[in-house]
Amino acid sequence: MSSDGSISAAASSIRLTSISSHLGKKPKILVSRDLGPNVMPLLTQRGDIEVVLWTQNSACDRKWLLDNVKGATGIVVMITDLVDTELLDAAGPDLKVVSTMSVGYEHINVPELGKRHIRIGYTPDVLTDAVADIAVMLALMAGRNANGTMGIVRDGLWPRTIWAPFALCGPQLSTFGSLSSTRTIGFLGFGRISQATLARLVPFGITDCIYVSNPSSSSSKKERNRIRDQNLLEQYQPQLKSLRAVDKDALARESDVLFVLTPGGPSTKHLVNEQFLQKMKKHSVLINVGRGSVVDAMALAKALDKGWIFGAGVDVLEGEPNIERDHPLVHTKCNILPHIGSATFETRLAMATLAVDNCLAGVAGGTMPTELDTEPSGGQ
Amino acid sequence: MSSDGSISAAASSIRLTSISSHLGKKPKILVSRDLGPNVMPLLTQRGDIEVVLWTQNSACDRKWLLDNVKGATGIVVMITDLVDTELLDAAGPDLKVVSTMSVGYEHINVPELGKRHIRIGYTPDVLTDAVADIAVMLALMAGRNANGTMGIVRDGLWPRTIWAPFALCGPQLSTFGSLSSTRTIGFLGFGRISQATLARLVPFGITDCIYVSNPSSSSSKKERNRIRDQNLLEQYQPQLKSLRAVDKDALARESDVLFVLTPGGPSTKHLVNEQFLQKMKKHSVLINVGRGSVVDAMALAKALDKGWIFGAGVDVLEGEPNIERDHPLVHTKCNILPHIGSATFETRLAMATLAVDNCLAGVAGGTMPTELDTEPSGGQ
Repeated sequence: MSSDGSISAAASSIRLTSISSHLGKKPKILVSRDLGPNVMPLLTQRGDIEVVLWTQNSACDRKWLLDNVKGATGIVVMITDLVDTELLDAAGPDLKVVSTMSVGYEHINVPELGKRHIRIGYTPDVLTDAVADIAVMLALMAGRNANGTMGIVRDGLWPRTIWAPFALCGPQLSTFGSLSSTRTIGFLGFGRISQATLARLVPFGITDCIYVSNPSSSSSKKERNRIRDQNLLEQYQPQLKSLRAVDKDALARESDVLFVLTPGGPSTKHLVNEQFLQKMKKHSVLINVGRGSVVDAMALAKALDKGWIFGAGVDVLEGEPNIERDHPLVHTKCNILPHIGSATFETRLAMATLAVDNCLAGVAGGTMPTELDTEPSGGQ
Repeated sequence: MSSDGSISAAASSIRLTSISSHLGKKPKILVSRDLGPNVMPLLTQRGDIEVVLWTQNSACDRKWLLDNVKGATGIVVMITDLVDTELLDAAGPDLKVVSTMSVGYEHINVPELGKRHIRIGYTPDVLTDAVADIAVMLALMAGRNANGTMGIVRDGLWPRTIWAPFALCGPQLSTFGSLSSTRTIGFLGFGRISQATLARLVPFGITDCIYVSNPSSSSSKKERNRIRDQNLLEQYQPQLKSLRAVDKDALARESDVLFVLTPGGPSTKHLVNEQFLQKMKKHSVLINVGRGSVVDAMALAKALDKGWIFGAGVDVLEGEPNIERDHPLVHTKCNILPHIGSATFETRLAMATLAVDNCLAGVAGGTMPTELDTEPSGGQ
């Protein structure tokens, strides 16, 4: 990064000549949010498209969106914009691509776009490092009860806090010589972010890594995973002693630090519930940087209250962002972040740039850098 | 760690037969604080010493200490106990060893103990991993403004927080592909904890490491450091591209993340002042896990207010623990912890065990595991 923190986005080199001549006019791209001075010029400084932008610092107004989307060939949307039949109908037959600046696409009616042969761009992968960073941060914070201990200072109680040999202590993330020589980290979901989190934690002295992955994997995928695991283990040896897929019960019982990094949806809802939390070690910590719905928030509040686990850190929470201060998990020992996993200048810039590139490529009918497969069968 | 988080301390095997017979009675050991059920038995369950213990959960009362220290052969003290001539006079001529459960010894009149040939035990090194963990934690928290963003949730403002592509963003600790491919971490002081912090940060994509070390180093020490640096660089290549000693000016200008990990005292007081902070990168963060006196707290508050740097995280603060809620640094963008760097069950247990072992070895006249050199010339 340069000294002022600025990062240059690479200007897209996609040519739209053919589509312009086909339409007999410049293709219209609607952008539902100002993407900032580093990214907007990728659209506004080219003469071959018409750009329509929601300029206010708030979620794009629905009525404005419906009024302005008419005749658009491409739309760049945020997670706050619902892409449903109403919007698609309002856009009309020219619409070729919807590009969202997000890794999630719960706001998009994917089957409907598939039916209409409208392509979808999204922004996976680019947030891997940012989320892995925050996973490590929350693991450390949960073990040290960071929100609680910082609260002592915030509330002016430091002068009146009695020092004692074991006061304000938590379980150490790093191993400790022969006194405490093993650490098992567990992952519920073992995709790119989990693997990037593992990479960061190995030098803390992690000795064992266990995970639960999608049980519906095919045998060829299982073989790929086996080879991947073998490669990872070799990469981190001799520090890492073992890396293996386990069942949910073993994951709960054996993890010192447990990361929830699995997609949302009905199949993973409340996988971490009271029963799961009761099996965990008393000095373990639970970190959720995946999807809020996977962890039963009431059960987590109970687990912290009853001392089933030592601490927790979450960047996502079921019902977010409608979490009021009287929510049962607020003002417990849980460290709660307002879903800022991908919120670094670098990552958001890359996400915005990728969203624009996906849109431009879709409008031009070319290969989109990261296109969502809209057909469940895996075709296209 | 076992599932209930318990760790067993190794029972000390030091024999005190000779000293007992010399005194004609059991040697008395005074302990100024209850060291807990894992460590106290190392003293209380042996029959060859008399143990006198301050049992209350508060700093040892001074009058009680002066009354009970009389005739002691060894004393185990905490940082809260002043070991001065008054205490030594009250103890009398049998006193052979003062063992503190701390790495710092500002509370001990070292020259006076040297004059009286009273040995000093302290507990260095064992807290290296715990403090390195918290250094990494604070670096991540400073970049993500963790206290501030958690405050949004604590204060019930999450439902009313407007999402925007670059809202709540901070500089990413990890490198980001070709878009942001270098990271320089700087260390003011480059001892064991700094090196352990570096080890943890390499997988985040750190490319360059710079440090300022004690300028009064001898040429033989410089040569040792050169070899150490070469070994470290080789260990972390190809990820780490450079590792070098620099001057204070370059440290301020080049660091993306700057760790203060130097001892306290007059020679390092306010090394980080307004002038230093003004030279830093706008998107850099400052972390102090060394000694509070090294950083001018008023200057740091100003730097955060003026945007000279992006964020900060400190575990130590000048004037601690007397930091009230109206302190200029509280309620800024600074993440402040109440000096909990070594506060893990594992580390505090090791510190307490080591303090007891040092005391017993000193009473027996044997080799203390970690004895402080009381003669500045390096003799003894």
